[in-house]
This record gives sequence, C-alpha cells and structure tokens, in this order.
Amino acid sequence: MVCIVEIISVGNELLIGKIANTNAQWLARRITTLSGSIRRIIDVGDDLEEISAVVRESLARRPTLLILTGGLGPTFDDMTLQGLALALVVPLRLDAEAEEMVRARYRNYELETGRRIELTPERLKMATLPAGGRPVKNTVGTAPGVIFQQGVTSIVAMPGVPKEMQVIFEESIEPIVKNAAGAMYFHARSLESVGVIESELAPLIEKTMRENPRVYIKSHPKAPEPRPLLELHFSTTSTNPVTAREDVDRAANMLTQLITEHMGSVSQVDEQQE
Amino acid sequence: MVCIVEIISVGNELLIGKIANTNAQWLARRITTLSGSIRRIIDVGDDLEEISAVVRESLARRPTLLILTGGLGPTFDDMTLQGLALALVVPLRLDAEAEEMVRARYRNYELETGRRIELTPERLKMATLPAGGRPVKNTVGTAPGVIFQQGVTSIVAMPGVPKEMQVIFEESIEPIVKNAAGAMYFHARSLESVGVIESELAPLIEKTMRENPRVYIKSHPKAPEPRPLLELHFSTTSTNPVTAREDVDRAANMLTQLITEHMGSVSQVDEQQE
Repeated sequence: MVCIVEIISVGNELLIGKIANTNAQWLARRITTLSGSIRRIIDVGDDLEEISAVVRESLARRPTLLILTGGLGPTFDDMTLQGLALALVVPLRLDAEAEEMVRARYRNYELETGRRIELTPERLKMATLPAGGRPVKNTVGTAPGVIFQQGVTSIVAMPGVPKEMQVIFEESIEPIVKNAAGAMYFHARSLESVGVIESELAPLIEKTMRENPRVYIKSHPKAPEPRPLLELHFSTTSTNPVTAREDVDRAANMLTQLITEHMGSVSQVDEQQE
Repeated sequence: MVCIVEIISVGNELLIGKIANTNAQWLARRITTLSGSIRRIIDVGDDLEEISAVVRESLARRPTLLILTGGLGPTFDDMTLQGLALALVVPLRLDAEAEEMVRARYRNYELETGRRIELTPERLKMATLPAGGRPVKNTVGTAPGVIFQQGVTSIVAMPGVPKEMQVIFEESIEPIVKNAAGAMYFHARSLESVGVIESELAPLIEKTMRENPRVYIKSHPKAPEPRPLLELHFSTTSTNPVTAREDVDRAANMLTQLITEHMGSVSQVDEQQE
C-alpha cells in the first residue's frame, strides 16, 4: 500500500523567514520512517483565500493524508479552520466535544494558578470546527487538533507549536499513516565520500542504481563543486526489514568499491531505520 | 510597487525530512528586508512531472519573481532545468556562455590540483539550459544559475548548495527585487510578553492593530497555551525608514502598556531593519 502525504504549513512567520519550517521537517522524517511518502510541502501565510486555495488544490491531487500545521490558536490571524471550512464548503460551528476539551484545559489551569479564565469568543474559536470535523485531543496545549475524511483523503489540522504538533501526531495521527502504509520498513544510510568530484561520481551512482533498482541514491555536495566532498544517501522501503537493510548495504558496498577504484575514500556517517 | 515572490525548492532530501528548508528561510528573510513579499514556499521532490507542475501552477498566479533552488547539479536526479523546459514548453540546448562558465571553473580546478577534467555529458548538463534562459555566474561553484522572463514573471533557478545560492542571490538577483519593490523599507521588532496568556492577549493585539493599521502584529507562543509566555512580532513596510520605525515603536509601546495594565510584563528581544 502507498500512503501519499502532503503538508501545508500556515503562518506569516514562515513567509518572512523568521523561522525555518522545522515542523514540516519533523513530520516528513517521521512519516518517511513509517513508510509514508511526502509529495509536497507548502508554506502559506495567515490568509483565508490562500489557505483555502492550497487546501482545494491539494485535495484535487487526492493524497492519502493532508496535514495542516499552524493557525489553530485564539488570535484573529489564526484562520486555518476558517480556511478549511471555505475549501470544503461547510459551515463552522461550535463543537461540544472540542468545547469540553478547551474548558477542561482552562479548568486545570485555574486549579493550578488560582486564576479565573472565562470562555471568551477568542477561546471558543479554538472549539469552533468546520462541520464534519472531529476534534483530536491536545494533551500539552489548549487548541484541539481536527480530523476530517474528505473522499479518499484524511485531513488533519494540528497547532503550530512544535511540542503540541508532535504529541498530537504521535498519539493520534501515526496510526493513520501506519495503517495506510501497511507493514513497510524504511531503511537509510549515509556515507561521506572524499576525493571524487560530484560530476565524476554521477555515472558511478547511475551504475549502482541500475544494478540495485530498489535503492534510491542521492549525492549531497558538502562543498561547492568541483571540491570533492559529498554525502551519499542510500534509502529503500521494503515489506521486510532485513531485505531493506541488505539492499541498502549491497548498494553502499558497490558504490564504495567504485569510488575506491576512482581513488576516492568513503566513511559511514549515519543510519536510520524503523 | 509590490514585488510578489514564490519559492520552489526542489529535492527529495526536503521530502524525507533529512534537512529543513533553510534556503527558503534565508531567501524569505532577505527578500522581506528588501520589501518583497513572499506568497508561497513549495517543496517538491526530484521528479520531472512534479517540478513542471508546480512551475506551471506558480506562473498561473503571476508572481513578480519565481525562485527555484536545487536540482542544477551534474547527477541524473538534478532535473530542475528539464522541469522548467517542460513547464515552459521550450527545448533544452547547450548554452555557449554557460558552457564557458563551466569550462572556466574546471580549468581553474585543473590549475589548482594538476588534475585533468573532461567536459563529460554530466558536466555539460549544467550548461544545458531551456531555450530563452540566460546563465547567471556562480562565483563559488560550478553550475550557473539561470534566469528567464516569462510574461510578468522573472524566473530564477539557483543551485541548492546554500553558499552558492546565497552568493548568486546577492550578486545577481537582489537588484531585481530592489527594482521591483521600489525604495521601500521593512522594519520589525520582537517583544517577549510574560504573564498574560495568548487567548487573553488576542483582544489587546486586535485593539493595537486597529489603532495602528500599518503595523502587522503576530503572537508566537513560546510555551503551550495557556502558559503565559509569548513572543510578539511587530512589522511594517514604508517608503520612509523613519516612519517605519516610528510606526512599529508606537504599536509596540501601546501593546506594552495594555499588557502591563493586564498584570503582564514585556521585554525587548530582537530588531530587524534594512
């Protein structure tokens, strides 16, 4: 089975370069090790039209899973749920279960701090979901995540605070990816190659990939071409974890030998498996 | 004048979460300080159909500038220029000026190292541009950048190695942004607010933005809601750098006072101007 994923990250802070999109990186890494396949990552601003446009465009490509991060908070420019409602052409309405999640969170905070917190419109906004959406418990923050099924696509919206996003993903979204991807195993390994320049490596990589068709190899220059310092990244996905590792190792050994024959040298730098 | 920019970053390493898209962040920050406005950032894999699809989609939105990073190198999976040619429906052809750039780069390397480098097909690929594209000198690496004009949009492709991308941007692309954005000044300032939770801050921010319509204010939780620790980011763009700073300061002072009245406290954390 194949689990095709698209990620939409919402926030002006991404578009002004205030932060790098490390949420998307975290998700991409996790989903890849779960054998899901990320097709696109899209960053948009806190703009209703833009959010609904990218959601509609993504749904038209029919991914298995569409993940949105950011824009679920209490401020006026948190508008991911409005954007979703606009894209799905459904109304927004206060969700009783989500309201109880928000209420419980503030109740705990009141008990902790002795401070009274009213459920103002800003706070109830976090429980106001597009019709058809179900809230997903946020055990570390206030705004619940939201999940929808739209045709073949599961849509998930999560807060942009990294810790909240990570916990919601692990607790509630990971099973969806595992289920869609089936029992697949991702294996990756990186080598560092010294002494052979990238344009010289290109035919050696092609030869190795031709003879190891299940392994994907990518070279990453660690210094401007033609300086001969590169990272070589080998990865594969298999129904069998032993096969995955063997396939990667066979390709890595073959390319190492080819590089050595071309007067270069190779060392191990990283390994990743789930 | 307005300079609307879209960024497409090409590379499987982004989609498997091997790296965060720090190239897009660097570009977004630079372009914002030059008063350009980033509308979307899109990450796609080393896939010909995907690259050409995102290019076509972006051109249909008619940005002032479309920047592509990555996929210009000598290996088979560097296919940004093929993707551009497919999107623009033009042939690829060896460009004499680009070939001379690549040749000169290897000649220098030969003189430095005493090592002979042939212009193999992999190396000539870096000088094989979609018709209508002009090469842009890469003073730190081998693959030239490429620039096109397509209707209202300037398209620029740059290598993904950060240092190469940065130097090409500074030497050759910055003037395009400056020219399109006109003499505009961006000013931003960040404050850290302690003691008022985000859902309580929301109406204070709205009030401040209503009375300071030229200033955009965004709150970034530094801890899960309702823990009361937030960064407040103020930014504006103006034809006058003094006005830009004054507008931001006026809004920051007003919100600081409102927060203090709500028993919170505020401290300065960052300032950014160009």
